[in-house]
Amino acid sequence: MRVSSRGMVDPFIVMDVMEAARKAEAAGRHIIHMEVGQPSTPAPAAARRALARALERDALGYTVALGLPALRAGIANLYRRWYGIDLDPGRVVVTAGSSAAFLLGFTALFDAGDRVALGEPGYPSYRQILRALSLTPVGIPTEPQDRYQPRPDQIPDDVRGLIVASPGNPSGTMLGREALSALIRAAQERDVAFISDEIYHGLHYGDRAVSSLEISDDVHVINSFSKYFSMTGWRVGWMVVPEDHVRVIERLAQNMFICPPHASQVAALAALDCIDELEANRAVYARNRALMLDALPRIGLGRIAPPDGAFYIYADVSDLTDDSLSLAARILDEAGVAVTPGLDFDPVRGSHTLRLSYARSTEEIEEGLSRLAAFMERFRGQAAR
Amino acid sequence: MRVSSRGMVDPFIVMDVMEAARKAEAAGRHIIHMEVGQPSTPAPAAARRALARALERDALGYTVALGLPALRAGIANLYRRWYGIDLDPGRVVVTAGSSAAFLLGFTALFDAGDRVALGEPGYPSYRQILRALSLTPVGIPTEPQDRYQPRPDQIPDDVRGLIVASPGNPSGTMLGREALSALIRAAQERDVAFISDEIYHGLHYGDRAVSSLEISDDVHVINSFSKYFSMTGWRVGWMVVPEDHVRVIERLAQNMFICPPHASQVAALAALDCIDELEANRAVYARNRALMLDALPRIGLGRIAPPDGAFYIYADVSDLTDDSLSLAARILDEAGVAVTPGLDFDPVRGSHTLRLSYARSTEEIEEGLSRLAAFMERFRGQAAR
Repeated sequence: MRVSSRGMVDPFIVMDVMEAARKAEAAGRHIIHMEVGQPSTPAPAAARRALARALERDALGYTVALGLPALRAGIANLYRRWYGIDLDPGRVVVTAGSSAAFLLGFTALFDAGDRVALGEPGYPSYRQILRALSLTPVGIPTEPQDRYQPRPDQIPDDVRGLIVASPGNPSGTMLGREALSALIRAAQERDVAFISDEIYHGLHYGDRAVSSLEISDDVHVINSFSKYFSMTGWRVGWMVVPEDHVRVIERLAQNMFICPPHASQVAALAALDCIDELEANRAVYARNRALMLDALPRIGLGRIAPPDGAFYIYADVSDLTDDSLSLAARILDEAGVAVTPGLDFDPVRGSHTLRLSYARSTEEIEEGLSRLAAFMERFRGQAAR
Repeated sequence: MRVSSRGMVDPFIVMDVMEAARKAEAAGRHIIHMEVGQPSTPAPAAARRALARALERDALGYTVALGLPALRAGIANLYRRWYGIDLDPGRVVVTAGSSAAFLLGFTALFDAGDRVALGEPGYPSYRQILRALSLTPVGIPTEPQDRYQPRPDQIPDDVRGLIVASPGNPSGTMLGREALSALIRAAQERDVAFISDEIYHGLHYGDRAVSSLEISDDVHVINSFSKYFSMTGWRVGWMVVPEDHVRVIERLAQNMFICPPHASQVAALAALDCIDELEANRAVYARNRALMLDALPRIGLGRIAPPDGAFYIYADVSDLTDDSLSLAARILDEAGVAVTPGLDFDPVRGSHTLRLSYARSTEEIEEGLSRLAAFMERFRGQAAR
């Protein structure tokens, strides 16, 4: 049967890595997972308890399209806690994960054929969702010296939007207040919609991340309960939109999604208060990150982006290979460690980069690093011959 | 801030009715809800128990994009149970409600600018989702004598797709095997993709509904756990696609949704086996329907579509008004019964129709009918003066 041209999006390479890892495990091998972009922890205990109670009491039918009012208020309150800013809950839109937020935001902002800029390396689905909506992604090749983030002078002339992520995926790098302000200002001066992906906020290891909302109200901020709140599979996220976009997004959400999953909203509301458990998770990532930063240079994987936040290390392996796909396959096969080749994130330069996630337990990270060290020793030995 | 032209979709009128009803309730009035398209029952008890167990045991992270393999197999098995057909679970795609299935199906099948036909009256979001995806909806004015379903000769010349729902919303009418076959054949002869919305399957009160999959494999069938399985707020549905579309849909789903909500998938899997509880729900709808069919002609609302399935009555009120919006507002205000004006479903002829839902408890339906009877008596009295 015929397939539309916009339906022909690229596959997610990390999915193939996960499938290869699953097959190796099914064949009895023990695999360390440094490929996956999700915590291994469940939703916070109190969030699960809140849902268990609701299961006995509530019908959990449709909610209103913008989400439970209490959850919208709770999210607005998070902006006071995290950034010290006053946010009208009426501007908060609860979504079925950040995925739904991108679909809603892009649809509200752009018409078919519009061009939208995004930094490379970056989250691969930006590009694919844009293509699925008949929009044209325009990659900005970011530089290590710019922390793999776009500069104002790199915004292309003919774009209607710019997507920026801080902390970034795969890089984990953050934009400081000044750099972020300059980007937002440059975009607004040229009538370019600014979409700020803040999904890794909360996961920082030095200074906290700056929200675009601290700088301007005329931005679309997208966030989620997936990462800091450890709720990937629940598919619940949010966006904060300019006041005059709320009604537009509401109508689109009514029709495109009806509502975000009710059970997930109940759990998310309770998760907002689970500070101790979530900070304990973050302390694990901080330990893991310290282990990575200590070990990677020693084992020959030290050309990395400044890992300000999130739970990723983005390593330049151009001294080892110009085929990151094969290198990742060898690491899985020979070392039993799953890592992601950079091609998902940067279709051009990703052939000499790898992304390593440290979102799992410290024990796993230690074992993974020791396996990587042994692999690198063999690899260099072979290369030297 | 600028809004895209495709972002300017119509509001859902029923949402305004629900909001007006909510306000009346907040002001202390007692309202009977005949406007809502959802059961008042929760997910089946065993489904809720299965999730409660999973909350204690599983991290409930991302699932694969096409859904839990056990759920895909369970859905395939439902096709044996309901229709006696063998279905490869590999063709079943679990989605975040039928909403996500429409987004995926339309994106895989159609490019920006394509025209897609749909019967009117029909589910309003077809039209709005198409517009949000830069597609052009082409309404087919269906006739009462055709059970408000399109005829093969009504398929417009220049469309790439046709959406058909049996049982329909708002009409509740079904297409028999022969009529459905003729429609599918006519579409396929003209290379028009056939999208079969079967979300009300399982809710029939005479003969069961015929699935398009009994007739052809070259169709996109969309269904959901929302209605028969009483799980609206869970946002879990499915589609069955031609074999050569599975990989296309998988890549789109990976990027546009990542996965359907994991907790909802766990509950849905258990719901498949809750036959007794779900059939008891259906028995309530059957009683409610019988009460409606008995009372409505007596109180002057007897010009109705053949209510074969779902839980709706679509009433022609052209003898009472040519402004269904005002009539619905008066019924809410004077009788305390919320009903939906037909304009959501048929932007042209819906000004003289109403949709009445009988998805709530029998007690509520009885009270609603008695209030409607009193209202109609007053209404006719005023009209006669």
